[in-house]
Amino acid sequence: MRSDNPPCGLLVLIVGPSGAGKDTLMERALADYACTQHIILTRRIITRPADAGGEDHQSMSESDFDTALKTGDFLIHWHAHGLRYALRADIRDDLARGRTVLANVSRKVVGTIAELRLPIAVIEVTASREIRAQRLSTRGRETTSDILGRLQALDWQAPNGIDHYRVDNGVDLNTGIERFLIALARACGGDTPIHHLPIDTGPRLIGFLSLRHPLHDAIQALPAPRVEVDILGRPLVLEVQWVDDDRWLAPNAIGLARATLSRLGLIAGMPLQLQPAPPPVGAPALRRKLRGHSLNEDEFSSVVHDIADNRFDEASTGAFLASLANHLNDNEVIELTRARARIAQTLHWDRPMVVDKHSMGGLPGSRITLIVIPIVAAHGLIIPKASSRAITSPAGTADTMALFADVELGPDDVRRVVNGANGCIVWNGRLSHTPFDDMTNAIVRPLDLDSARMSVASILSKKLAAGVTHLVVDLPTGPQAKLQNQGKAQELKQLMESVGAALGMRVLARITDGTQPVGRGIGPNLEARDILKVLGNEPDAPRDLRDKALDFAGALLDWAPDVAPGKGRVRAEALLSGGAAKAQFERIVDLQGRRALPAAPGPFHADITAPTSGRIDHIDIWRLNSIARLTGAPGDTLAGLDLIANKGKRVEVGQPLYRLYTSSQSTLDRVVAFALTGNAFELQQE
Amino acid sequence: MRSDNPPCGLLVLIVGPSGAGKDTLMERALADYACTQHIILTRRIITRPADAGGEDHQSMSESDFDTALKTGDFLIHWHAHGLRYALRADIRDDLARGRTVLANVSRKVVGTIAELRLPIAVIEVTASREIRAQRLSTRGRETTSDILGRLQALDWQAPNGIDHYRVDNGVDLNTGIERFLIALARACGGDTPIHHLPIDTGPRLIGFLSLRHPLHDAIQALPAPRVEVDILGRPLVLEVQWVDDDRWLAPNAIGLARATLSRLGLIAGMPLQLQPAPPPVGAPALRRKLRGHSLNEDEFSSVVHDIADNRFDEASTGAFLASLANHLNDNEVIELTRARARIAQTLHWDRPMVVDKHSMGGLPGSRITLIVIPIVAAHGLIIPKASSRAITSPAGTADTMALFADVELGPDDVRRVVNGANGCIVWNGRLSHTPFDDMTNAIVRPLDLDSARMSVASILSKKLAAGVTHLVVDLPTGPQAKLQNQGKAQELKQLMESVGAALGMRVLARITDGTQPVGRGIGPNLEARDILKVLGNEPDAPRDLRDKALDFAGALLDWAPDVAPGKGRVRAEALLSGGAAKAQFERIVDLQGRRALPAAPGPFHADITAPTSGRIDHIDIWRLNSIARLTGAPGDTLAGLDLIANKGKRVEVGQPLYRLYTSSQSTLDRVVAFALTGNAFELQQE
Repeated sequence: MRSDNPPCGLLVLIVGPSGAGKDTLMERALADYACTQHIILTRRIITRPADAGGEDHQSMSESDFDTALKTGDFLIHWHAHGLRYALRADIRDDLARGRTVLANVSRKVVGTIAELRLPIAVIEVTASREIRAQRLSTRGRETTSDILGRLQALDWQAPNGIDHYRVDNGVDLNTGIERFLIALARACGGDTPIHHLPIDTGPRLIGFLSLRHPLHDAIQALPAPRVEVDILGRPLVLEVQWVDDDRWLAPNAIGLARATLSRLGLIAGMPLQLQPAPPPVGAPALRRKLRGHSLNEDEFSSVVHDIADNRFDEASTGAFLASLANHLNDNEVIELTRARARIAQTLHWDRPMVVDKHSMGGLPGSRITLIVIPIVAAHGLIIPKASSRAITSPAGTADTMALFADVELGPDDVRRVVNGANGCIVWNGRLSHTPFDDMTNAIVRPLDLDSARMSVASILSKKLAAGVTHLVVDLPTGPQAKLQNQGKAQELKQLMESVGAALGMRVLARITDGTQPVGRGIGPNLEARDILKVLGNEPDAPRDLRDKALDFAGALLDWAPDVAPGKGRVRAEALLSGGAAKAQFERIVDLQGRRALPAAPGPFHADITAPTSGRIDHIDIWRLNSIARLTGAPGDTLAGLDLIANKGKRVEVGQPLYRLYTSSQSTLDRVVAFALTGNAFELQQE
Repeated sequence: MRSDNPPCGLLVLIVGPSGAGKDTLMERALADYACTQHIILTRRIITRPADAGGEDHQSMSESDFDTALKTGDFLIHWHAHGLRYALRADIRDDLARGRTVLANVSRKVVGTIAELRLPIAVIEVTASREIRAQRLSTRGRETTSDILGRLQALDWQAPNGIDHYRVDNGVDLNTGIERFLIALARACGGDTPIHHLPIDTGPRLIGFLSLRHPLHDAIQALPAPRVEVDILGRPLVLEVQWVDDDRWLAPNAIGLARATLSRLGLIAGMPLQLQPAPPPVGAPALRRKLRGHSLNEDEFSSVVHDIADNRFDEASTGAFLASLANHLNDNEVIELTRARARIAQTLHWDRPMVVDKHSMGGLPGSRITLIVIPIVAAHGLIIPKASSRAITSPAGTADTMALFADVELGPDDVRRVVNGANGCIVWNGRLSHTPFDDMTNAIVRPLDLDSARMSVASILSKKLAAGVTHLVVDLPTGPQAKLQNQGKAQELKQLMESVGAALGMRVLARITDGTQPVGRGIGPNLEARDILKVLGNEPDAPRDLRDKALDFAGALLDWAPDVAPGKGRVRAEALLSGGAAKAQFERIVDLQGRRALPAAPGPFHADITAPTSGRIDHIDIWRLNSIARLTGAPGDTLAGLDLIANKGKRVEVGQPLYRLYTSSQSTLDRVVAFALTGNAFELQQE
């Protein structure tokens, strides 16, 4: 059982015989179940080459191991099967911050670790001899006699006073993972099992409890019935609805809707730890803000934490966010940035300079990130880029990159890729996206709040936590962009740069043309094609995309110590033209995990033509986005649209303006019909 | 079935043989079930004296009836049992405004009414011969042969094409009312029966529907799953939670929690009319306000309607109210007042001058209303006063008045009382309180928003709708009052008076001392005692209460055309001292429905004494309120506290400061213990 006084984490030692499937269970549980997002998996250090296959580990040479041992870098170390193993000493820091840490260790060191007097529990993963023998033989790492030797070690009991949970991983993988999660939840103090109730509560986080639940009276005494659940170390508050029928819900269980299970990445049967939700500590700060006062970092931090933990009702959160949208002075943006950085994922780089590039978005196409990162990385700057998936647009950078490589990387893998190729292009969902983002997006978007100033804090806090020292920001500006005019763009540019400066970060915000798409394709596959043409220096590569990418890469390279001021763009051009950028891109793709590129877009396509002759005066970005979404992008990665004509160009009646790609004729018909109900291209007769 | 195009009301004709209990069912349904709050009960006009007993009606002389008939004041008229009957013509206006109107009519006129081509339905209330004979004989209005004659009329069928529902009122009254409500709901188009689900959803308005409900797909296509239900003509939006188990909820039903049934005054089995909730028409106006724009009357009106109908999610409503609390310019207060007046209950008085008195409240005791109204009414001014019950305080004016007389009067009864006694003191719950108040109070209070400027619109809109022409407002001001300082009080005074002027209402706002209670008693019974002492000119009547009441009555009388300017207070004093005010109070009490006054407070009591000697420097109003609430007031009307010492007075150690009254020794012990944990009276040593 973990202590009742957070922050006090738990070190969960995963033990079990070879072939029981410890590593697989741990990795799959952490990769596939969002409930584990606050859990830290610590890799063992082993004196075995990294590419030797089998269990995941951090490889270390014998001599490095000796050095680390002397400098106190290990929490504990041991020998097994002729190799040397260790756990890193910084686990202590994670535990002090209240985190749950998983470590795959040998049973024989459990007693020694117990002597360290850390809060620990043991989960023993087991499987029958037959199953283990079968698994071990497929590893091909050991001889049959080795395998037989391992299979003898079976009966084992954790030292006295240490909680010991057993997981039988002898059935299929999913059963094993579920049993593992349940054992983990019990180790973390969970005692109230989750029961799936056949009620769909929509996006609202509701926990159903029996009127006869032991906490009933204590929860009803609250101003509003809310329960705090501990999900493997992450606190979260659920609104309570009471059930008065034991056939529906047993008095000792907590009922959750399927959507809640899936949103929180929980499974039925997992026990949670419950307590009446304490009042939000940020309530006084929130009320101060509503009454027009300015908040400082600590005040913002309390509110941000409470919103992330769902401690406020929606009326309070809505009122707070509307208030931020209207009144957030420059200093408050700085304070809010610092407060948000506290909950952002931290990354540490032992480099004096870590660069990044960010776009305020809203512009279709404009997929320059996949060109900028390899150029900058090819020069040798560190650029760990985390991008979003599309939410309302036809593609996000992560959607397009996902065609080339795996983008769902955790912090350890990001470190590995960046160490190997100076840069990465990964999805921000596991890296920099926070529960606070989910909670606020669900309110800011439907209310259409002016979130520009808030977003400065959002962006910079994540960069700050991720160790970024130099940042270039793209501010597409135009009547249909997030920044509607030069005035707003200028205001935001100055705010970004000054807040960055106050936080010790060099920020350069560039106001760019947000009146038309950049590049030709809109949709993952078509954008990927444009990017490959630019990286490959193909003659028909979209010029505007190439130019914009070089501008941004150049701005970043201007900061490089070995590039003369103002010569960044020249250097960028050289890296792109000479093929170094392309080679670097391939290196990044390989390290992230290469995927087979899909072939051609479509296969169905149709052209939308000019209804009259004239000069293209205006492109309706919103309409173009809608049309591109209707083709099926980004879900259907082969769908999208391809611009044929550009703004300012003269077209004759009947000449194609853009081409639609869909995966079915019926979708194509529907999109064409919609496209013909209006004009995405406005033609001016000359 | 009512039309799908509101506003288009429904005239429900209630027919049935004498003794079936039509009037009783209608009256009880309307008095006891909040779901009927939008239904209008039209009283028949009968050429029979008003005090003749039996069914409720508006009495009219034969000659007045003839005149009204000639001037077209009747929708329809008929003869029965030697009397003449009629329905008022203004029913057409109510129907045009989409209201459901109930009318008790003779079966033989249904055909004639049908020819008027209004939307009508018929509910026939029946009972067995035996039961009807029994009921009729207790009326004592008719002879046995009359009764027998009536009991012959039984079989009857509404004319073709008119919906005809039958209610068997032959069991007990509650069963009859439930059957009547179900028939009424069916007449109003209800087709989805309410099923009580054993889930407590708290204050949230949730409708449970089966995943297999016919509207599932249409509702799921909405941005958020919400259903609009029509409750006897009142639209209301419920958040939808889906149930995936036919044993819990049949696919054709709507599940509601017990608390929802009770809040909306619904009963299980009543059918509702459902449709996917259309998007709130006020959403653009709400967003404009969130972005800092000012709104006009129409925009406010759309948002106010949508909030009252629960069309917005809480985040939107919270954001909107927080925005109003921070930014509401003077003109917006006027526009908001006009918008809110549209949904307020309207009252019409054919008098050039209708006065009223309002208090911003927050001060314990200070129950001057029960003194001011009779004084002003005794002079001859019309003063129809609607007051609140206590929400967080130990008593509201309506709580105290409820000791003397019935306060739960509807508009018709208010008119009757005021016509008879010039004034009334009734609960505002059925008169001027709106669903919008419920929705906003639930957010403004927990968020502790500064609602002072909003409340000007709230107060004045109701007075405007109620036909008030002259209003005096009490603004108690002090560090613990709603208005904390003179600056805020002055600002609000000027706002109230100028907004009133813009709306054609004379408003005088008086800033009063809000640093200590007025009167001695706190709690319904103790306050009633103080009031009777003042009205009875008893020598030990609390001076401060008498003075404040005379000030406010005087201010109102200053406006009377037959009182010389500045002589209002003198006139008020004469009316009070001479006993006219007391007599008028008794008249009001009689007309509202006199109640037997409970005897003495308590019976348990204890004194809290001065811990040291000194001058009473400060009285902690909040603490005093808490202590008074702890005694059980206002629920326990005999509980409360009595001030013995006043601010500024010198007391010796051990001398009593105030006396607590409770209904049990254990409560008394608990309150005393709490009272001794701190000092409600601050003593300054001299």
